[in-house]
Amino acid sequence: MHVVVPFAADTPKTRLIPALGPRERDVFARAMLEDVLAAVRGTGREPTVLATDEVDVDVPVLVDDRPLSTAVNAVLASRAGPVAVVMADLPLTTPESLEALFSTEADVVLVPGRGGGTNALVSRHPEFRVDYHGASYLDHRRVAREVGADLETVDSFRLSTDVDEPADLVEVTLHGGDRSREFLEGAGFTLEADGGRVRLERDPQ
Amino acid sequence: MHVVVPFAADTPKTRLIPALGPRERDVFARAMLEDVLAAVRGTGREPTVLATDEVDVDVPVLVDDRPLSTAVNAVLASRAGPVAVVMADLPLTTPESLEALFSTEADVVLVPGRGGGTNALVSRHPEFRVDYHGASYLDHRRVAREVGADLETVDSFRLSTDVDEPADLVEVTLHGGDRSREFLEGAGFTLEADGGRVRLERDPQ
Repeated sequence: MHVVVPFAADTPKTRLIPALGPRERDVFARAMLEDVLAAVRGTGREPTVLATDEVDVDVPVLVDDRPLSTAVNAVLASRAGPVAVVMADLPLTTPESLEALFSTEADVVLVPGRGGGTNALVSRHPEFRVDYHGASYLDHRRVAREVGADLETVDSFRLSTDVDEPADLVEVTLHGGDRSREFLEGAGFTLEADGGRVRLERDPQ
Repeated sequence: MHVVVPFAADTPKTRLIPALGPRERDVFARAMLEDVLAAVRGTGREPTVLATDEVDVDVPVLVDDRPLSTAVNAVLASRAGPVAVVMADLPLTTPESLEALFSTEADVVLVPGRGGGTNALVSRHPEFRVDYHGASYLDHRRVAREVGADLETVDSFRLSTDVDEPADLVEVTLHGGDRSREFLEGAGFTLEADGGRVRLERDPQ
């Protein structure tokens, strides 16, 4: 299976602006990417980073500065065998959660993200294409039906937890990969219980 | 396995106040409870509702008006065999996700909730006790270690998605059980894409 990890090399994670500065967002996005790459390698597979610009990682990088969906569809169109697309902002990813995705045998296998996104997928159907805009999980289900692909969904908290907004950071501290979690700890984030869900607070620096 | 579903019969879901009125919160909490009970029954098991007051459901109800942790620990102390505790605010629960929990063989099996909670668990250890206050997922891991219980965690988006806050409602519309989803549709909530995650908006009524 060809495993692609798309990565926005230029303006990563702008919705984390309230919590992290520009340089921090860059370092944190890279830490999350490295955690995802390590999890893919943990399944015995070699990931390819599909990046908007050159990025310094120790796996193959394919640079394509077109919009995300266009770049991913170019990969899907160019490969004969199965392709997996795993987003780079999934720092809770483990080899076990990815193996559950990779081993699910359907033409199209989807992992929904929070808020209707598609965090990871496998396509074994030559006509399946992506559109990550809006409620992509619903759109991808519709596209799979339209091209006659049979469809499965993988139920994984780890793969469904994309880190986009400050409230998501608490999941990284609780369950995240080493690099992402250690970055947040080093940046002064600590768990605070306020009666409802636990939240992160940041020490004054 | 004895399956207990705790339910706050009196003041349900106060953190949904910005989105739903008092009567609506009551009806929605009941709809989520019914979706969870249906999923438990779908595994071939008969759930018991552990409620703070009488509640009209077609399964056995155990009334205990003490705090949640105290009431659950009384159940754990009273049973010799395995006990599952599944929260009532998990409207994405399916028989399949519950079966993954029930069939995981460890002394203590945990499903984390968003923000460090514990959405569901199985205890097969006579000394394991719960404390749902604060980051209960971390506390329950510690308690399991302290009593010498071996521990597993189940990775399920469906079981990890507790519905506490208005932003959670979108997951119900996208992936929820029939009763909960139909309640929100009937209340005028519709999906709106705003560039990031899809969110719910409510029609003026």
